[in-house]
Parts: sequence; C-alpha cells; structure tokens
Amino acid sequence: MNSLFDPKSVAVIGASDNPSKLGFHVMKSLVKGGYEGTLIPVNPGAERIFGIKAVASVSVSQAQIDLAIVVVPASRVAGVFKECAAVQVKGIVLITAGFKEIDDPAGAALHEEIAGIVNKAKIPVIGPNTFGMINLHANLNASFTPEFSLTKPGNIALVSQSGGISHLLGFLAMGDGVGFSKIVGLGNRLNVDFAQMVDYLMDDPDTRTIAFYVEGIDAPGQLLAAAKRHAGKKPIVAFKSGSGSVGDAAARSHTGAMAGRHEIYRGAFKQAGILTVPGTQDLLDAAKALAACPVPTGPGVAVLSGQAGPSMAACDVCEQRGLEIVRFRTDTQARINELLPPLAHRTNPVDMGPAWYDSEAIKGIVQAVMDDKKVHGILFLMMFASANVEALAGISGLLKEWNQKKPVVSCILSPPGIWADQIRDLENAKALVNYATPERAACAMANLWKYKSLRRNHVRNF
Amino acid sequence: MNSLFDPKSVAVIGASDNPSKLGFHVMKSLVKGGYEGTLIPVNPGAERIFGIKAVASVSVSQAQIDLAIVVVPASRVAGVFKECAAVQVKGIVLITAGFKEIDDPAGAALHEEIAGIVNKAKIPVIGPNTFGMINLHANLNASFTPEFSLTKPGNIALVSQSGGISHLLGFLAMGDGVGFSKIVGLGNRLNVDFAQMVDYLMDDPDTRTIAFYVEGIDAPGQLLAAAKRHAGKKPIVAFKSGSGSVGDAAARSHTGAMAGRHEIYRGAFKQAGILTVPGTQDLLDAAKALAACPVPTGPGVAVLSGQAGPSMAACDVCEQRGLEIVRFRTDTQARINELLPPLAHRTNPVDMGPAWYDSEAIKGIVQAVMDDKKVHGILFLMMFASANVEALAGISGLLKEWNQKKPVVSCILSPPGIWADQIRDLENAKALVNYATPERAACAMANLWKYKSLRRNHVRNF
Repeated sequence: MNSLFDPKSVAVIGASDNPSKLGFHVMKSLVKGGYEGTLIPVNPGAERIFGIKAVASVSVSQAQIDLAIVVVPASRVAGVFKECAAVQVKGIVLITAGFKEIDDPAGAALHEEIAGIVNKAKIPVIGPNTFGMINLHANLNASFTPEFSLTKPGNIALVSQSGGISHLLGFLAMGDGVGFSKIVGLGNRLNVDFAQMVDYLMDDPDTRTIAFYVEGIDAPGQLLAAAKRHAGKKPIVAFKSGSGSVGDAAARSHTGAMAGRHEIYRGAFKQAGILTVPGTQDLLDAAKALAACPVPTGPGVAVLSGQAGPSMAACDVCEQRGLEIVRFRTDTQARINELLPPLAHRTNPVDMGPAWYDSEAIKGIVQAVMDDKKVHGILFLMMFASANVEALAGISGLLKEWNQKKPVVSCILSPPGIWADQIRDLENAKALVNYATPERAACAMANLWKYKSLRRNHVRNF
Repeated sequence: MNSLFDPKSVAVIGASDNPSKLGFHVMKSLVKGGYEGTLIPVNPGAERIFGIKAVASVSVSQAQIDLAIVVVPASRVAGVFKECAAVQVKGIVLITAGFKEIDDPAGAALHEEIAGIVNKAKIPVIGPNTFGMINLHANLNASFTPEFSLTKPGNIALVSQSGGISHLLGFLAMGDGVGFSKIVGLGNRLNVDFAQMVDYLMDDPDTRTIAFYVEGIDAPGQLLAAAKRHAGKKPIVAFKSGSGSVGDAAARSHTGAMAGRHEIYRGAFKQAGILTVPGTQDLLDAAKALAACPVPTGPGVAVLSGQAGPSMAACDVCEQRGLEIVRFRTDTQARINELLPPLAHRTNPVDMGPAWYDSEAIKGIVQAVMDDKKVHGILFLMMFASANVEALAGISGLLKEWNQKKPVVSCILSPPGIWADQIRDLENAKALVNYATPERAACAMANLWKYKSLRRNHVRNF
C-alpha cells in the first residue's frame, strides 16, 4: 500500500493527448499536480504524450513501475492486469467502469476475473469505477480531476465510495480551508475496501483523522473489526447516505453492494467507535474539528460571543446535542463581572458586546473561562462590525499560547478580505477551528464530545 | 416609513471623526456607501466631520431632516428626540443602547419616556440598541458597519432582532451571492416591531421575500394579524432562536421581551402562514429560494445528477422533508433511456454520469423531466470534474429559456474560478438557485413546497 500511495514511478495505461479521453485528464493531473517521480504514459498509438516518451505497454517499459493507473475500456482490463502482474507492478488505480455495477451479468463475471488476477499477484487495487486517488503530501494526483491538486495538504484522509461526494467535499474544503492527507475514491472495491484503508491509514503518519463517505459495504464485519482493532488510535467519522428508501435503492445500484438498513449501519458504527454524522458538510466539519482539536474531557461548554444573537443560535444546538452550557465557578463569574458592565449578559453565554473596543477585557474573559475547571471547551463567536476590527488581534497571542489545552471552536465571520488571514493564521497554529455559522461551530464541538463519549466505551483511559 | 427608508436628507446626531466612536462608523457607512442625499453631521464640538459641515443641533439646521440617526449616550436621547419632534424629523434610527434591556429599572423608565415623545409626534423609530438599517436600493447604509454596503442589492428584506445575526447573514450572503432589499436591525423596538415591518414591506416594490430572525416578541398577536392580513402576497420565513432553555433565557435578557415557549411560536407562525426554519443558514437558503423561484404545485421532484453520490444525499433529505422522488411517466423514462446507457441509474434519481461529454444528452434529459407533469420541481446536481467542464454551458440556454416554469434548485459546485461566472449568470437570469451542498439544495426545494402547503391553508387558489 505504501508503493500505491507514494510511488517512485507511475504508468498511465491509456494515457492520451486528446482532452475528450479520461487518459488526458489523468496525465494532466499528474503533470500539473507536480508529481516528481518517473511518469510513463502507456499507449501503443503514440510516441509522446504530454511531451513525455510513451511506451506501447508496461511489458516493454524498462523502468520498474510502482503504480499503474488504468483507464482503458473494461474489455481490455484483464489483459492489462496480467501484464501488470507479470512486471510486478506494486499497486493499481483502476478508473475504468463497467464491472459489477452494470446490470449485465457479464460485468460481474469480469469483476471476478480481474480480481482473481490481482489477488493472486497480491496487487492492491483502488477501483474500478473510481475517479482515482490523491496523496497531497506526495504531490501525487492519480485522478482524472487535476483541480484536486488545489486542495490544501492536511491531516484528514477522505475515503469515499462516491466520486461526486469526493469532488463536493474537495471543493467545500478549498473554501473552508480544510486540508487532506489523502483523498481516495474506493469505487467498486476490487480488493481495497474501507477495512484495508483503516489498516493502512491508522499507520499513515500524514493522517490524523479518517473521514468516510459510505453507501453500502459488502463486508461490514471486516471494517468493524479493523476499526475496533485500532480503537482510540485515530478518530473515524462517517457519513452514510441511504437513510431514505430511494437513496438506499440508488446506492444498491450505484455501488453494486447491499446498501441495507440505515439503522443497522449506525448501530454497528457506534459499536466500532466510528462517529456518524448526517450529511456531507457535517462530515467535513466533524473531520476538521477532530483533526485539529483535543477532545473535551466533559460536556461543559463556555459560549463567549461578541454579539448576543449568534450565541443563542449556538446554545440551542449545544443543548440539542448533549453539551452543557455550564454555570461558571464563582471566581470565574466574579472575574467576568469585573470586565463587563451589567448591561451585558455576563453569565454563560457571555455577551462580550460592551468589550468590543477593549481587547484586554476580551482577553481577560477568555482567560477566566480557560482557567475554569467546569469548562471543557470554549465556543468563541465574533461577527466583524467595523468598530470591533481590533478584537481579534487582541486575543490571537493568548489563543496561540494556550494552544487548545481545551478545544476552542469558533465562528468568526467577516466580509471578504477582512480577518481572513488572521483566522487562517489561528487555524494553522491550531489555536482554534473556525466555522461559518454558530450552529456549525456548536455542532463541531458536540461531535468532539460525542466522539470522546463513544471512545470511552472502547478504550480505557481515553 | 418611506421617508425613514428612502430619506432625502440624513442627520447623524453624535457624528464623529474619532474611530473609537460609533458616530465615526455611521458617518463612514453613509459616505462610503454612496448616500446621495443631503448629509448633516450633528455635533456641537466640531466644525466639519468627514469634511462635511457640521451643525450643533438639529434645531439649528437649515435643511429639512427626513432621517435622524442617533448615537449619543442614552441620557441625552430624550432631549434629542424632543428636538427631532420640534423640527418634524420623519424617521429615526436609534443606535444607542441602555434602555429596557439593562437590569436597571431606570432603563425601562427612559424607554417609556422617549417612546412617549416619538409616539406623540408620530415618528417611526428603528431601535434602540440596534446596529441600524440598510436600504441597498437607495445606497443608504444607516448602520455602524460600512461593510454592509458590500452586500448585493436584491429582493430579500432581512429583519432581525439581533445585530450579530444580521452581520452573520450579511457576510454569508456575500459568499452565497444573495442580495437584499433592506437589512433592518429592530433592536428593542420602540415603536417599529415585526408587525409594522410586515405592513411596510408587503407594499415595498423592492422586496419579494421577507426573512425574520426572531428572539422574542412583545405583541405576537400584532405580527400574526399583520401576516394574515397580507396572506399570500409575499412569503415570510422566520428563524426563531431559543429552542433550548439557555438560549431562551439569554433571549429574554437580550431583547427585554418575553421570549417564551418555542413551540407556541412555531404553532402561531404556522397559523399565520409564516414558514419557520431551524437555523441561520436555513433562513438565508429558504429566503433565497422563495425570492427567486416559483412555488411548486406539488411535492414531486426529479433529481438529475452528474454523479450518483450527491443524488443519494439529496434524496435522503427530500424524503425526510416531505418531497417525493417521483416515478417518471413512461414516455419520460423512455426518452431518458434513449439518452443514457444501462450502465447508469436511469430512473429517478437519474445518474447522468455517462452523458458528461454529451451536452445534448444532458439537455434532452432535462427537457424530458421539464415536460413530465408528474415532476413539480427539478433538483440539478453537478460536481465539476475537468472532463465535464462543458456540461454547464450546454444546458444554460435551455434553463434560461425555460425560466423556471417549475422551480429548478441546484448544487453545481466547482473549484474557485471555474463555473462561478456561469452559475452567477444562471442565478441572475433566475434560471435556477444554487447551493453549496446537495442537502441544502434539497432542503430549499422542500421549503418551497412547505411554504406552498402552508399558504394553501390560508389563501384560496394559491
């Protein structure tokens, strides 16, 4: 698997200079993505592709091939796989579709045939019917979408059964400043399924959190066993679609797998310590928090807000999702009362409105709740309003220095071009994680706590 | 109220050149916002403010004052109001805080005193304790946040009891391409409350949809009566915070109003034909759809997707929220079957994956469901993937020409800089409304249908 995700050489079987072919887009992904290893276009009908010398087949290539990306028609895949096995290719990404997922039983037969070849040769295969995979830390874009290389390198591994969802989350991540270690489209899982990805990613030093998009799993027992085997090591968060009957039926058709009852999956995931979330944005939001925050040691939250309204929206979500808006310790409350006039709501949730111009007061309030043992996590909400433009700079140092001894989840929002660099700077320093609405921030904090609670059932001293 | 929102002259009472004063930010909002009427800074201690000749008080101003924006300390407001009444100011925005919302009973007394002055003089007042208001169609930024002028003019009127939520929604709207007619911070509602805003906005030609953020209402009966009075004229959508006990208590403190049981509000809003949503992003999303789409005549939805995964996520939400993923008419299905290979999921939700490179096929599929009487609305989902870069251009003409005879709600997503102009162009042409996730798109469609169902109970032939 290491050679698959970090290959020294890559062959593109079905490489093309014709933009109407996927083999063109794969070549573009590798070249534009800045892949630095040996790149070998394979196409019997071309001398050079993307200006790089092409070979007619992997059999005639002089170089050792670590990874083969295959984009030839389904009918030719068995032959290609035999050649790959013969020259001891170490891993394959099979983009081609037309196997188990089609109505025709010939597709399933072909699937079995090619599985037999690579399983015998012990070659791990991502796909078939996948857009590919990306290793952001190796500048390896082994997909048909060059734009995935715009994604920020980070420590979340995204493993998805849907290319569409991978693209969706990739583009959302670009806007939300979320970074990935790897983005993997499992497709129809010839021999690399969620279970194999868990085993690999739990030991992957670039990955801190694993995010799954699941439609249906052939061998759920394998995944659950793998998740339990590594319990407590790294968080896994999963969104499974198909809660409704239509989506479920579509999933069955799309993945060629039994999608099956949604509740059974949820129960099984819970048993295995996998955090489940109900949607795509939630998946990204939860993964972002789990990748950048410590887990809280309890459900007690302090809500510190520059304006009252957003704190109410956040409190509603906190209460719905099992967090407690704690009553501060007496000394904490006394410190806050010294810093804020009675005009403000000074108990939790704290309305810091009157302290806008006074970054020392804001700092003092943040410090007070940091010191309060009843507070297990801090929700910090601040809408830009011109007059409070300095409010963020005033607490940046404190937040960085504190380094999330307890999780700090924020909704700091501003017009384009204002505060954006400061927020990114705080996120990069792991001083906080930021979300675009107070509800999403509260939800992320709730998921941190939910994960902690889940894991407690599995791992002693977690 | 017309003079309040579209004044020929504006006086800023408490105007300042000192950036640590709100009077500075209000002046900046008006000047930078491009207000074209007569602007009169009022401050006894300055000759000129922002380079504009200042007056010592409104009493000595030679010009007729339509709107007075007041930012002087609470103790001075009664005196200022008397002067405003004497010179027949037509409307006031009272930014100053420190009235009913503070613990001190003196605040409530002051509130009553100033209310008496303006009520006798029949001057409508936005505030106290507000950031102000903005009329995007008159370049009037009567708030302490100049950046509100960056918001796009549009046809949604946002009326909010929280400045923080107004800022939040304003900044989200900038990212989501949502435009406002007016943004109004009601604050503590001296004599302009939700009910008065309903009466005004229902006749406001710039407003098509009204969005409310509600914490607690003193006179809910008035609002409900006003909403019923104008039933069916323009949609009202509301998010009320305080579903939890903490948020509710904070709301009581923040607004000085009885916040009260959340369920009672929900029931009353439903009775009055007001659509309720559970959060800030939902409020913006629902308002965006209601402002740009026709309401569907039934719950039947066609889901057309460039990739299978996103359609499943969308279908789950549709089913949860009362929409039906209809079975197409036989002739519709036959047309789609001609355009797509069996490889794809051709029944609803339709996986248009194989038609990526074939914009004529995509066009044919869209046309087929447009013609299907069982389809009341179209969900169109398309993730950019390099190879499908032409897919959007191919259907733009058809979508524009069709002009949403049935609502078209989309999730078309791409990396920064790709498709953004085309999506904006389609939105500006009212050919569709676009959202960043399939779930948000599905939710917006569900809210269109929910609104239609709500209104049917009130208005015959709606």
